Amino acid sequence: MERLEQQLNLIIELDKLKSVLRRTRVKSVEGRLENSAEHSWHVALMAILMQEHANEPVEISKVMKMLLLHDIVEIDAGDTFVYDTAASAQQEEKERIAAERLFGLLPNDQGDELKAIWLEFEQAQSAEAKYAKALDRIIPMLLNYHNDGQSWQEHGVTKHQALTINRKIEDGSTILWHKAKQLIEEASEKGWLKS
Amino acid sequence: MERLEQQLNLIIELDKLKSVLRRTRVKSVEGRLENSAEHSWHVALMAILMQEHANEPVEISKVMKMLLLHDIVEIDAGDTFVYDTAASAQQEEKERIAAERLFGLLPNDQGDELKAIWLEFEQAQSAEAKYAKALDRIIPMLLNYHNDGQSWQEHGVTKHQALTINRKIEDGSTILWHKAKQLIEEASEKGWLKS
Repeated sequence: MERLEQQLNLIIELDKLKSVLRRTRVKSVEGRLENSAEHSWHVALMAILMQEHANEPVEISKVMKMLLLHDIVEIDAGDTFVYDTAASAQQEEKERIAAERLFGLLPNDQGDELKAIWLEFEQAQSAEAKYAKALDRIIPMLLNYHNDGQSWQEHGVTKHQALTINRKIEDGSTILWHKAKQLIEEASEKGWLKS
Repeated sequence: MERLEQQLNLIIELDKLKSVLRRTRVKSVEGRLENSAEHSWHVALMAILMQEHANEPVEISKVMKMLLLHDIVEIDAGDTFVYDTAASAQQEEKERIAAERLFGLLPNDQGDELKAIWLEFEQAQSAEAKYAKALDRIIPMLLNYHNDGQSWQEHGVTKHQALTINRKIEDGSTILWHKAKQLIEEASEKGWLKS
């Protein structure tokens, strides 16, 4: 029963991810910023739907675990806007410490196993991690595009930034990178991305 | 590319689940009701953490898919409070129609495959479905318990109702049902559940 209590403690702690806010707004609830918990649901479900578009065959249960876990470190470290490269540089150490604390709440064997999956995602080397990273990059672009470029406009993002920051989508899915470039091109024409 | 566009349409449509509100409040954001998207994330992640407590061995990727998909029909059908048995009876038909529409947005083969997983969850017969259902039942109890019994108190839920409605947890996990009974007993002693 001690294992169960440790696991339940983490479950309760994870509730906090519902209050970590991102830069993307939820279209169906006008004005509200998306939180990292609902984003994690959306992108994990996207992984199921898009599996056929991964560049390499992927073990889908690994991908789903990565995406369900990938943002939990934000409970301590907060969310960093993908276009804020200065903040992103400092973020890595904060997230590493957060991972130690959160996965440390679990029984050792389980904590180590899940921390390894989180780290595999961060390192973006395996087929699963590259595919998961591609989805995590393209989903805010999609939502933004269908929300009149809201987050790009609010933060003055340029077409060049969008093309540079999101290029890694190609490592996980050539087809999704093709789609992303199309979205960037159209958003640029509409004036949602600065030139 | 037509398959991709169909899949992306569903992704955008799914954004709406972030505005379907449940009866449980998010502790870390006082006063805000939890939505079904963030709940789906939380319970899918719980499935990873609790796998060893399932009564039977489960294919975890199936369980995660079930839990990521289980509430999407609420986009059309809305959420029903688990203790509102009258509404629950009418809900089934609404959800069936919603499933036809949402899975119908996908390429046929993919829509059929995912609808079958959703249906398997609903029917609660397989080991995966029983385990997933148990988690879906216990997680609001856990959050409620750690929130001074908020939802039980707001809706005047009785100890008898809590024991009856949640008994099916036992079908998926005897250990979690044991824990649930302990939570109900303590909540009852604290006066959060009516006698």
